[in-house]
Amino acid sequence: MGGDVGPPVVIPGAAMALRRHPETEFLLVGNRALIEPELERQPALKAASRVIHTDVAVRMEDKPSQALRHGRKTSSMWLAIDAVKRGEADATVSAGNTGALMAMARFNLKMMAGIDRPAIAAVWPTLRGESIVLDIGASIGGDAKHLATLAVLGSAMARVLFDLERPTVGLLNIGTEEIKGVDEVREAAELLRALDLPHLAFVGFVEGDGIGKGAADVIVTEGFTGNIALKAAEGTARQMGEYLRSAMSRTWRSRIGYLFARDAFQALRDKMDPRKLNGGVFLGLTGIVIKSHGGTDAEGFASAVDVGYDMVRYDLLTKINQTLNRDGTASRL
Amino acid sequence: MGGDVGPPVVIPGAAMALRRHPETEFLLVGNRALIEPELERQPALKAASRVIHTDVAVRMEDKPSQALRHGRKTSSMWLAIDAVKRGEADATVSAGNTGALMAMARFNLKMMAGIDRPAIAAVWPTLRGESIVLDIGASIGGDAKHLATLAVLGSAMARVLFDLERPTVGLLNIGTEEIKGVDEVREAAELLRALDLPHLAFVGFVEGDGIGKGAADVIVTEGFTGNIALKAAEGTARQMGEYLRSAMSRTWRSRIGYLFARDAFQALRDKMDPRKLNGGVFLGLTGIVIKSHGGTDAEGFASAVDVGYDMVRYDLLTKINQTLNRDGTASRL
Repeated sequence: MGGDVGPPVVIPGAAMALRRHPETEFLLVGNRALIEPELERQPALKAASRVIHTDVAVRMEDKPSQALRHGRKTSSMWLAIDAVKRGEADATVSAGNTGALMAMARFNLKMMAGIDRPAIAAVWPTLRGESIVLDIGASIGGDAKHLATLAVLGSAMARVLFDLERPTVGLLNIGTEEIKGVDEVREAAELLRALDLPHLAFVGFVEGDGIGKGAADVIVTEGFTGNIALKAAEGTARQMGEYLRSAMSRTWRSRIGYLFARDAFQALRDKMDPRKLNGGVFLGLTGIVIKSHGGTDAEGFASAVDVGYDMVRYDLLTKINQTLNRDGTASRL
Repeated sequence: MGGDVGPPVVIPGAAMALRRHPETEFLLVGNRALIEPELERQPALKAASRVIHTDVAVRMEDKPSQALRHGRKTSSMWLAIDAVKRGEADATVSAGNTGALMAMARFNLKMMAGIDRPAIAAVWPTLRGESIVLDIGASIGGDAKHLATLAVLGSAMARVLFDLERPTVGLLNIGTEEIKGVDEVREAAELLRALDLPHLAFVGFVEGDGIGKGAADVIVTEGFTGNIALKAAEGTARQMGEYLRSAMSRTWRSRIGYLFARDAFQALRDKMDPRKLNGGVFLGLTGIVIKSHGGTDAEGFASAVDVGYDMVRYDLLTKINQTLNRDGTASRL
């Protein structure tokens, strides 16, 4: 029911994801009257899914506390998360209200042992490929221990998503000189160096422009800065796209040039397509919850489902546990 | 002497700036043996300038404390700032070590009445034109009072640079809902609303992607987040440029397209040219100090000189004082 559009995006998106991973099964949680007409158009998805009906839906503008008050145990969002808790589903994917989704996930699924606060991780396109950036807004601020925990969570996700043995991890900071930066970030660097974890190669500080360069597989910062960095970068990408569009339609010569280079522009658009990297991963919870952009289309929602698929298929939670609880890391954090 | 190149960039840059503002006079502070050969090639600049010789130069890798220890009273950086202090110069422009420049400026020039901590402001290109973003790294963290002071400083700079009566000011935050964001940012919003200043129109919170949209003339945040947002955006712009270059050289069709659209690409490059917006402005000090990017060329350095020129010509310090000390604002901060 979530996102700006609801079932007309979510259902075709799920159908696309199913075509890529035909063994997937879907629980579609929400208003049957809105889901079923969409499902009729997707016979393969219909065959692979079950509808769980509820009239209650969290609204995009609800505050987390409101959502919990009105939607606990009844809303589609709650029931979808609850299916993960009860082991009926392996992952929840939602395009709904982020704050409400996090509040419900936290309330219902609880935190993993050794983790106090959840995080949201995003996949960030870079000149080298892709990196994981976290936290992009689940919690604000945090001490060295929190940042080190984010490094553990992010590196587990990088192992899953990029199939790496020992992903590189950098801490976002405002200078590579030792004199700069905040105390927590400096202490987190010392802590990560001291821990010297088998599943995580700490590479030191990374500045804001190092993210796009692909300076590390995982970039760690607290949620306020991470959210602003992500949105500043998204805004800049959109801005560049606008400049390009207006430049290419300025003169007849540029319009002809555009026609010749149409394939190149299409490749560029594909490269910059934010839908392909849709799917913020909630980390630190005892279940897998993926947040799709609310404004995405079916293609973007399918990407979010794909991310959830990967996290389940390649055992995100086990990989987090490997680093955190089997190596005795948690006790040293 | 500052920047990656020194006099071969600074001297031609000053000469360019002089052509745009022929009434400018220059004090060129540094090693005469390096300055004079460059100056010989710029007769107009030579006629409008005086060389102040010193052998001592702050190095790009010096820590601020080292720079102060070794370069106080003797280095070119110190002497340039000192010329402003003594009223011999109206502004200092340096492409040198940012931390050292800030430390020396603070030590020698002191803070304006009513201001505790300095800030660095950058001009950020937006879809509507340009905005001022501060603080981009002069100091880390800060309470509501600090953020409100940044708003005063930034709005004074916007009045100078954009010739506005009452610039709009937004606080960078991670959501426009009242539930989100950090306490300091929320309190700063209340404070700015309560102050209702004549020279500053507070417009509320702005998210990271609002900067590029031009959501406000002035965007306020503390230095850690501001620095990371700026560099993340710069990195993204460079990344988009790389993608575009590689897309346009991929096939013979795209290369032909590029030839036809060459003027459009040139216009785009001009639009995205970071040199045109070079010049971080130090705010809160009793004198005007402009920081040019260390890696810039003569064109970029000339832009930094232009920014200094504007700040002097249109009375930045008076405009800050107007808001801060004449309206009794300082006592309410």
